Amino acid sequence: MAKNTDPLIPSRLAKRMDTSKETVYSILDEALYCTISYVAEGKPFAIPTAFVRYEDKIYIHGSVGSHFIREIEKGIPVCISVTLMDAVVVARSAFHHSVNYRSVILFASAEKIEDTEMKRMAFEWLTDKMVPGSWGYLREMKNNEVNKTTALAFSLEQAAAKLRTGMPKDDEEDLELPIWSGIIPLETRRLAPVADEHSGNIPLPAHLSGE
Amino acid sequence: MAKNTDPLIPSRLAKRMDTSKETVYSILDEALYCTISYVAEGKPFAIPTAFVRYEDKIYIHGSVGSHFIREIEKGIPVCISVTLMDAVVVARSAFHHSVNYRSVILFASAEKIEDTEMKRMAFEWLTDKMVPGSWGYLREMKNNEVNKTTALAFSLEQAAAKLRTGMPKDDEEDLELPIWSGIIPLETRRLAPVADEHSGNIPLPAHLSGE
Repeated sequence: MAKNTDPLIPSRLAKRMDTSKETVYSILDEALYCTISYVAEGKPFAIPTAFVRYEDKIYIHGSVGSHFIREIEKGIPVCISVTLMDAVVVARSAFHHSVNYRSVILFASAEKIEDTEMKRMAFEWLTDKMVPGSWGYLREMKNNEVNKTTALAFSLEQAAAKLRTGMPKDDEEDLELPIWSGIIPLETRRLAPVADEHSGNIPLPAHLSGE
Repeated sequence: MAKNTDPLIPSRLAKRMDTSKETVYSILDEALYCTISYVAEGKPFAIPTAFVRYEDKIYIHGSVGSHFIREIEKGIPVCISVTLMDAVVVARSAFHHSVNYRSVILFASAEKIEDTEMKRMAFEWLTDKMVPGSWGYLREMKNNEVNKTTALAFSLEQAAAKLRTGMPKDDEEDLELPIWSGIIPLETRRLAPVADEHSGNIPLPAHLSGE
């Protein structure tokens, strides 16, 4: 068998791969943060950060003074990883324990957004992802805030999803054992909002109270 | 000010750093997976994987045939990142939106566990982390399963936590605006276990039914 040299194709378990846009986008849209890995002086570094997908790119932001942002805005290669955990997979043997997950890995390099209006749009998409429907409700973003913040875009051209679903795959001879096997689903959810001390009698806006 | 060259000390927001063992361990013990970043041919790669902390090391496992495992078992530098999201921080301005999180970053290189009994112990810790109390209930791990699996340890000597807690930090002049501000707590929980089709009338064991 020819050696697999495509970094997007795992050496094993290729059946868990999915490069369809639909799958990749749905994972990216559900995840609240990604982990960005890069190389500095030959060594690996990784930083978790919020992000948003819009069309065929993802966008992140950060302070213009951030060491991390200043490294990757140069356009060096990055590897961006997103993981959602769906269930612990409980088999009859420790060996077949697993997790159900949906992950995306992508290779890209940053494209710095210089246009002010485009930056504002990226911040709008980011804000509305973290808190859907909130952008129009907030105090308007000031020019100096836009200037203090870097926005970077990354192409999704080199992105692939990897996932596991379903029940444990026990050894045939273990299926008769009197051992319970199945999955423990995991759920991440937003709880009721908690107001800060300055919110007083301000009603919770509809985009935060609706579920 | 002298240039900060310690990779564990962030260039900004140093107040969010915490290198105490107690904080680092509690984050590692709560997280179900870590993201391991490494460099191959000068480029960054990242893989999410299950892990367990035991005393002052973390342990991962993988197939002896895994390309990823074979790369990092050589002892090349890795950066391991763990992130827990606690809340979305909703400010009066988009600029002050944030997230409450607890993260750990550590720099290390793999130490391959060659001793069979030590490997078994690492698998026991891993299994009991994913499904607490399960190791003694399961079909015993076979020697060939131990042989097919690589166990790697990483020192926590170069680990640090970074975290944000609390309410939004709005600009003073925004505090009087009629805009709701606060946090939306996030919760990740285990739901009721779901049996596979071979579990029949086998009762759910106590370590899975207890809460």
